[in-house]
Amino acid sequence: MTTVGVGMVGYAFMGRAHSQAWRSVGPFFDPPVRPEMVALAGRTEENVRAAAAELGWASAETDWKRLLRRDDIGLIDICTPGDGHAEIAIAALDAGKHVLCEKPLANTVAEAEAMAAAAARAQARGVRSMVGFNYRRVPAVTLAHKLVTDGRIGAVRHVRAQYLQDWLTDPDAPWTWRMDRDRAGSGALGDIGAHIIDTAQFIAGDTLAGVSALTETFVAERPRPDGAGRGRVTVDDAALFIGRTSRGATASFEATRVAAGRKNSLRIEVNGTSGSLAFDLESMNELWFHDGGEDAETAGFRRILVTEPEHPYAGAWWPPGHVLGYEHTFTHQIADLLAAIGEGTDPRPSFADGLQVQRVLAAVQESAERGSGWTSVGGSEHVGGGEHVGGGEHVSSSVERSAG
Amino acid sequence: MTTVGVGMVGYAFMGRAHSQAWRSVGPFFDPPVRPEMVALAGRTEENVRAAAAELGWASAETDWKRLLRRDDIGLIDICTPGDGHAEIAIAALDAGKHVLCEKPLANTVAEAEAMAAAAARAQARGVRSMVGFNYRRVPAVTLAHKLVTDGRIGAVRHVRAQYLQDWLTDPDAPWTWRMDRDRAGSGALGDIGAHIIDTAQFIAGDTLAGVSALTETFVAERPRPDGAGRGRVTVDDAALFIGRTSRGATASFEATRVAAGRKNSLRIEVNGTSGSLAFDLESMNELWFHDGGEDAETAGFRRILVTEPEHPYAGAWWPPGHVLGYEHTFTHQIADLLAAIGEGTDPRPSFADGLQVQRVLAAVQESAERGSGWTSVGGSEHVGGGEHVGGGEHVSSSVERSAG
Amino acid sequence: MTTVGVGMVGYAFMGRAHSQAWRSVGPFFDPPVRPEMVALAGRTEENVRAAAAELGWASAETDWKRLLRRDDIGLIDICTPGDGHAEIAIAALDAGKHVLCEKPLANTVAEAEAMAAAAARAQARGVRSMVGFNYRRVPAVTLAHKLVTDGRIGAVRHVRAQYLQDWLTDPDAPWTWRMDRDRAGSGALGDIGAHIIDTAQFIAGDTLAGVSALTETFVAERPRPDGAGRGRVTVDDAALFIGRTSRGATASFEATRVAAGRKNSLRIEVNGTSGSLAFDLESMNELWFHDGGEDAETAGFRRILVTEPEHPYAGAWWPPGHVLGYEHTFTHQIADLLAAIGEGTDPRPSFADGLQVQRVLAAVQESAERGSGWTSVGGSEHVGGGEHVGGGEHVSSSVERSAG
Amino acid sequence: MTTVGVGMVGYAFMGRAHSQAWRSVGPFFDPPVRPEMVALAGRTEENVRAAAAELGWASAETDWKRLLRRDDIGLIDICTPGDGHAEIAIAALDAGKHVLCEKPLANTVAEAEAMAAAAARAQARGVRSMVGFNYRRVPAVTLAHKLVTDGRIGAVRHVRAQYLQDWLTDPDAPWTWRMDRDRAGSGALGDIGAHIIDTAQFIAGDTLAGVSALTETFVAERPRPDGAGRGRVTVDDAALFIGRTSRGATASFEATRVAAGRKNSLRIEVNGTSGSLAFDLESMNELWFHDGGEDAETAGFRRILVTEPEHPYAGAWWPPGHVLGYEHTFTHQIADLLAAIGEGTDPRPSFADGLQVQRVLAAVQESAERGSGWTSVGGSEHVGGGEHVGGGEHVSSSVERSAG
Repeated sequence: MTTVGVGMVGYAFMGRAHSQAWRSVGPFFDPPVRPEMVALAGRTEENVRAAAAELGWASAETDWKRLLRRDDIGLIDICTPGDGHAEIAIAALDAGKHVLCEKPLANTVAEAEAMAAAAARAQARGVRSMVGFNYRRVPAVTLAHKLVTDGRIGAVRHVRAQYLQDWLTDPDAPWTWRMDRDRAGSGALGDIGAHIIDTAQFIAGDTLAGVSALTETFVAERPRPDGAGRGRVTVDDAALFIGRTSRGATASFEATRVAAGRKNSLRIEVNGTSGSLAFDLESMNELWFHDGGEDAETAGFRRILVTEPEHPYAGAWWPPGHVLGYEHTFTHQIADLLAAIGEGTDPRPSFADGLQVQRVLAAVQESAERGSGWTSVGGSEHVGGGEHVGGGEHVSSSVERSAG
Repeated sequence: MTTVGVGMVGYAFMGRAHSQAWRSVGPFFDPPVRPEMVALAGRTEENVRAAAAELGWASAETDWKRLLRRDDIGLIDICTPGDGHAEIAIAALDAGKHVLCEKPLANTVAEAEAMAAAAARAQARGVRSMVGFNYRRVPAVTLAHKLVTDGRIGAVRHVRAQYLQDWLTDPDAPWTWRMDRDRAGSGALGDIGAHIIDTAQFIAGDTLAGVSALTETFVAERPRPDGAGRGRVTVDDAALFIGRTSRGATASFEATRVAAGRKNSLRIEVNGTSGSLAFDLESMNELWFHDGGEDAETAGFRRILVTEPEHPYAGAWWPPGHVLGYEHTFTHQIADLLAAIGEGTDPRPSFADGLQVQRVLAAVQESAERGSGWTSVGGSEHVGGGEHVGGGEHVSSSVERSAG
Repeated sequence: MTTVGVGMVGYAFMGRAHSQAWRSVGPFFDPPVRPEMVALAGRTEENVRAAAAELGWASAETDWKRLLRRDDIGLIDICTPGDGHAEIAIAALDAGKHVLCEKPLANTVAEAEAMAAAAARAQARGVRSMVGFNYRRVPAVTLAHKLVTDGRIGAVRHVRAQYLQDWLTDPDAPWTWRMDRDRAGSGALGDIGAHIIDTAQFIAGDTLAGVSALTETFVAERPRPDGAGRGRVTVDDAALFIGRTSRGATASFEATRVAAGRKNSLRIEVNGTSGSLAFDLESMNELWFHDGGEDAETAGFRRILVTEPEHPYAGAWWPPGHVLGYEHTFTHQIADLLAAIGEGTDPRPSFADGLQVQRVLAAVQESAERGSGWTSVGGSEHVGGGEHVGGGEHVSSSVERSAG
Repeated sequence: MTTVGVGMVGYAFMGRAHSQAWRSVGPFFDPPVRPEMVALAGRTEENVRAAAAELGWASAETDWKRLLRRDDIGLIDICTPGDGHAEIAIAALDAGKHVLCEKPLANTVAEAEAMAAAAARAQARGVRSMVGFNYRRVPAVTLAHKLVTDGRIGAVRHVRAQYLQDWLTDPDAPWTWRMDRDRAGSGALGDIGAHIIDTAQFIAGDTLAGVSALTETFVAERPRPDGAGRGRVTVDDAALFIGRTSRGATASFEATRVAAGRKNSLRIEVNGTSGSLAFDLESMNELWFHDGGEDAETAGFRRILVTEPEHPYAGAWWPPGHVLGYEHTFTHQIADLLAAIGEGTDPRPSFADGLQVQRVLAAVQESAERGSGWTSVGGSEHVGGGEHVGGGEHVSSSVERSAG
């Protein structure tokens, strides 16, 4: 059995989620390349040792660069904040290590371009890279993508996406580095807006070509957690845009952290010439599908419970009807990455996909700063279907196109 | 018992709906002024006579101007297409007749301004006018407005509205005058977009101050119903915009007639500083309410079945739990109009409210034509709560403000 | 145009609902026989005159027997409490008047048998009779019946029905005659249980053959509204039973007036060998349909919005997507009755259908009194599809069978 | 850090689910006693070795009795079919090993009584035992139990539970040992009916005192998977009963494997004197709560997304709004078991609780065989709240009562 040693950088929220996925992928997906949880890297020795023990990593390092020099490590999993992604990922790829990098790919387009270039160089040597837009691996989302690819809703005319959270509704919710533009890049836009941009484009099989946007900060200052006065909020609480896709669909997007009562409501609806699909992450095991070919007497949106053996990933877990949760998406992501490594193919979403999302974020930001003026999304990318989806089975996708 | 003679112009879809309301308002609402269905006006004598007999009107006229000369008529109900509204309404008001005018108020801002001026003149003489944005009188919508007015969700930060229909999804759906800009003014924008603009502003107690918009026509030509080739579609199939309100909330709006599978999905959500409300016309007896003051253990959106005696209008109809339908909104509208006439007050939505909606439509159209550039909504209006809502009881509202 | 003069007895809740239906049936359904609202009968002259004026009846009578002697009346509509049904209906039928009788048909099986016998006698002379189980005419229910009749779910295996209300949850809700067994017959069982028995049997196209039941009274005494102490509650607050149908399906039924928070939740689900249907009156414009023939990848319950021209009754009202309410069911009922009179056929539900429901109620009561012992449903009836459903179109049904 | 060595018997579906839980409990719940996955026992050496390697067990045994003799094992986890539970559990307890036994506790009341007796003996020596009714540990279910215990819905009047599956709808679904009464005990009744009995009693804080039941087998023979003709089905496809609880609530239960389109629909609703709760396992992260104390204007069922730090278990996993899946219930179960071992208390559901469920199953079976006659539930048990729920925090429960 082939194996690959894994070194992970970072062990906060994302590091915990990835660790659970590394522990789970073997028993449920039987990947062609088995992962070994070799080392965890962090800054403070005591903490990283404790975390490694708790999360199942065999060793700990206090400098991520040491992971690149170890021969027993073939894959680097980057779970640090976004401003550290570029340095680690480029170094790892250049060192010949496969890379899984958390989203967003970077904080700036320039960083993302450098990363995509490094990924292209590495690819020529058989080194794989992937960006962690995990919601592509919600079975209902993967199924939605497949149904669009299969032509079940025809040509997409409308894309409608919202990501509504409420944890900043209270003006006394404390200030954190996430409210500082220098460190976080943006607010709701990059944090959760990036997710709906990638997920909606993935489902629609299309890319945003231009946008008109606005952003808003409702609470200008927030109390510092240390009690030392109030910190300035220099990022958006909410970001909205309308736009057009490369293929001519209209788009409407909204990301906010101040939608009272909405905990994690990522909603996407696409309307095509012969059908529609709708999804809400708060009910993540369901996909709503309208088949335009149904007779009028019994036509309606179907609530598909995406838990059957015929559905992506679901068959690898439990019997029919047993629902999955948030963390399973990370296991699916790793299963597809390992399958790609085993087969010598390139996994999706690629660093190029991550760069394209970064360009959309930049266009949104630019439009908002220019009074909502129409702003084209720069560059030209391939986006679309992952190569490896579906619990070991391939959901082939020839969706390759250029963003105008 | 005081009575008022009613003359109605037009007897298509809207005329049928209004006739049902004129027949029903007496038994259920016991208005202070009882309506008498005196005369129906239309162009073709045979047809208008048949319609009058079927719909319960005592007489028929083939020229609407004759209604204005009849002493037994004190109220004109205008149910013609939008391009005829201004002439009839202004003449009726100047003749001292109360006027109920279907929405949209007019096809252009200029017409709407003239109508609002006529209404102001008439008001000085105790003559009342009202524009038929009937969805304000869905009990769940009226309740939503009341909860916002009562401060139950705090200050509104987000307004999110969609009106999704699908009857033009099929490219072979036939061409009608509604696809001709000269006659219809606009497409989805004026037809259904006007509804969500008025209804969302009513709920939020706020007005749109500026927008950035785009429109799209997916099917450029449609077969003429007479088989004589294809007609050009010169209006929008879909219109989207983002915007800001006078009080600083963000807004996201979309109106479309090509959302496959969505029959009549008018959805509005408003998020405030201390709560949220959500509504969908396809489930029009329900209002979803999140009270930000609930303890975290049991907080959640409540599904309020708006059918209780404590709810607007509902108590006038049936026992608790018995749902109402689309047409009831017209009966509520007339009940409130008759109450205003009886009390000598001005009903809402006023012609000034209708003009304000017209200005939003014009700003959307202008922005879309200028490449989505930011466009301020012209004028300065009072909008907000109707004076007479709630099945005879007043839901008072002091919501009076200026649109920037 | 043929007409029929109508005389109605009673003008409380049901009388108001029927009056609205008599006023509405003409404009919307264009029945072959046009109704004329000739006279309303009640006991107290002043009250009945006022009610007649308000509800649109041309004259008033203080003795229902006078209605039978009038030549301008051909149809008697009985809206009195159940203990008066038998006398009026039998006299009217014997006098050659068509009869529409509110549900339940009677308070006892003996009365119902006498009424069914009178209906059979009258039928031989071309006189029609119908019992007012109006929920058969909710478009979603009629559609469910049609889909079962069309074989879309195969043979029915499970019938599951609940009618949950909450207006007696509060122990201080006042005592009324409805809590007195001598006058009301039973409590939740006859009041709302009768509805789910008829509606579920109608949808399933099958009849209950035997039951095992229990009833419960949670509040033994309630305050008299006149303040004169407390009245004894001698009827059930809730009734539950399991059973088997004539064709071998299992059945589970529950009717209660003390389900806190449930206002009018009449829920029916039927599972067949190749599909399922589900309905909830609180969302009465929706029918949920699972087609067992769908491929596993996209199978799911469809939410059919029953508002399209292809659906029963809906096309007679408004454009697609516009919802109906509770009262429309009465208009549909009358439309079908008038169509039957015009065509010389027998409408359903017949008095025989009403008798069959009465027998189920009696079996439930008997089982509950005998410690839940299995109790066969007496008699042998034909039940099933109405002859006239669907807004003028026939939904033919050959569902004729015997209850074991 | 204290540890406990675990030996597991069986590695089919349940064994896989338990293994995932043993792997996950440490990182997320930090239990006072850390589990070590010492050995897996099965019959066939090759298979059990492969399974142990895949599922994370350090060694393999081909005889479960060897687990009892190992000093490095302190806890036996029984994941075999029900007919083997009694022998293993009693031997393990007598050998001083803590025991976690899958549900149902046994196939007969006699076996369950012997097991409960063994548990009582062991308890005196500080040895703990628990039966695996994992749905008690769905956070929404645990919260429902807590809200009832806290008095938030008052005294329970109605319990309504359904467990609907459809995997035997097709008459050509193959015969398995689960259709053989000698081996499986019963069909839907013991398999999924046991779940709703335990879960509903847990939520209601009450026990079934008597029942009236019927069972049905729709498909009498099924094709053997080996092609050797057809096997007889000697268990129920569906089981229904009505009943009364010890405290006087009514109960309605239905379990079926032939409800077309229902994949895993475990629905429970309880109505109390001052509120109601509703749950559906297909949407397992949601709890619906009606608070009878809300004012009528805004009263309604709240959809609580049970994913917040204030909710049972949820805080141990991910940030607010991130949903859990089926398998998490097993991790919660083990977390509570380890907490009990660490604190020297007795976990719930106990073997006595499992015996009580067995007695309900026996009463249902007996009633169904006696023509639905009323049948008292034998014995007298304590049931109710688990001692350890809530992600490490105690949800104390003094709910202790006797079943009549």
